[in-house]
Amino acid sequence: MPKKKSKLSIIMFSGTADKFLPLGILSQAAAAMGFEVNIFVTGWALLSFTKNAKEPPFPNEFKDMAPALIDGLKKMNAKPWQEMLKEAKEMGAKIYACSTMAGVMNIKKEDLNELVDDIVGAATFLEMAEGGETLFI
Amino acid sequence: MPKKKSKLSIIMFSGTADKFLPLGILSQAAAAMGFEVNIFVTGWALLSFTKNAKEPPFPNEFKDMAPALIDGLKKMNAKPWQEMLKEAKEMGAKIYACSTMAGVMNIKKEDLNELVDDIVGAATFLEMAEGGETLFI
Amino acid sequence: MPKKKSKLSIIMFSGTADKFLPLGILSQAAAAMGFEVNIFVTGWALLSFTKNAKEPPFPNEFKDMAPALIDGLKKMNAKPWQEMLKEAKEMGAKIYACSTMAGVMNIKKEDLNELVDDIVGAATFLEMAEGGETLFI
Repeated sequence: MPKKKSKLSIIMFSGTADKFLPLGILSQAAAAMGFEVNIFVTGWALLSFTKNAKEPPFPNEFKDMAPALIDGLKKMNAKPWQEMLKEAKEMGAKIYACSTMAGVMNIKKEDLNELVDDIVGAATFLEMAEGGETLFI
Repeated sequence: MPKKKSKLSIIMFSGTADKFLPLGILSQAAAAMGFEVNIFVTGWALLSFTKNAKEPPFPNEFKDMAPALIDGLKKMNAKPWQEMLKEAKEMGAKIYACSTMAGVMNIKKEDLNELVDDIVGAATFLEMAEGGETLFI
Repeated sequence: MPKKKSKLSIIMFSGTADKFLPLGILSQAAAAMGFEVNIFVTGWALLSFTKNAKEPPFPNEFKDMAPALIDGLKKMNAKPWQEMLKEAKEMGAKIYACSTMAGVMNIKKEDLNELVDDIVGAATFLEMAEGGETLFI
């Protein structure tokens, strides 16, 4: 019996700037390891997947540390999270926008950037995620 | 061999207003799909499961967006999260209050609202969640 | 066929003071239940695993409630989260620092406290976590 493919699903809700780093890093790493990767973008995070998205805010509690983080990322030549997601997608990762949040915030398919594969509901996503590991970020 | 029932467990810790939406939506969707759904309410979220709970705060970073979110939910005739949880419970979902957090915040069983089925410890909840998908919200 | 050992993996990203409580409680409970427990410390949380770490901040939204929480923990004689993690480690739990975040924040192995077993990358951690339950805190 062939080994079942591992699966990592991420519900991306938080919209602060810091949380997009683990989204990019975990998605890219999992996709490179051959995992099936499904990302469900909802909540405030959905705003960062629209065309002409504004820069997301850092959490107030760690604003003092944000310059050191940004500087450290530059020194390491780290790719922006969007680039990491693009690479994850080239290795098979899929990114879905939450239909409820899109409706609530009046975000149409044409408002979403090219990272988003489709708009789906929570039930559809739960079905995709079933039987794997699922993170809520 | 009959297919094992899928299981979604949610550790609900965050107490900001926005996070109750995915709690309601995911619980209701999973319960409707026939998943076993177990919710463990702890941290600041527990305050919102008490009788006469105050309205939880929106995260400071997204306060500007809160009116658009509230307005969008109204326009879609979205049910309040408590209503979604009630429907999830009618389909079998269970909601447990964390005994440690209840003790720390001096919250007694009679202080909790009718959504809560029981007060249990973390070990009991981990046993229920074992082998399924578990989210930390 | 012997029952496969249950596995709980935690990606610890959030660095606010409140989130270290569920980290300690869940890790200790899972380790005591015989779970394999792997913790991957990244993001702002990594700062709290350095020698001479500053006290992490409470989330602004719940600052009013922090004194009641701290007071309640004292009255219950609750152990500090570091003590809970130490006990979890004595029962087999492992704690890993994220190599990317360590690099970005210029944190060297000698800067980390004695709770940390090793510095590893996201791929190594995902491999450890594979097939178990994984929480993102």
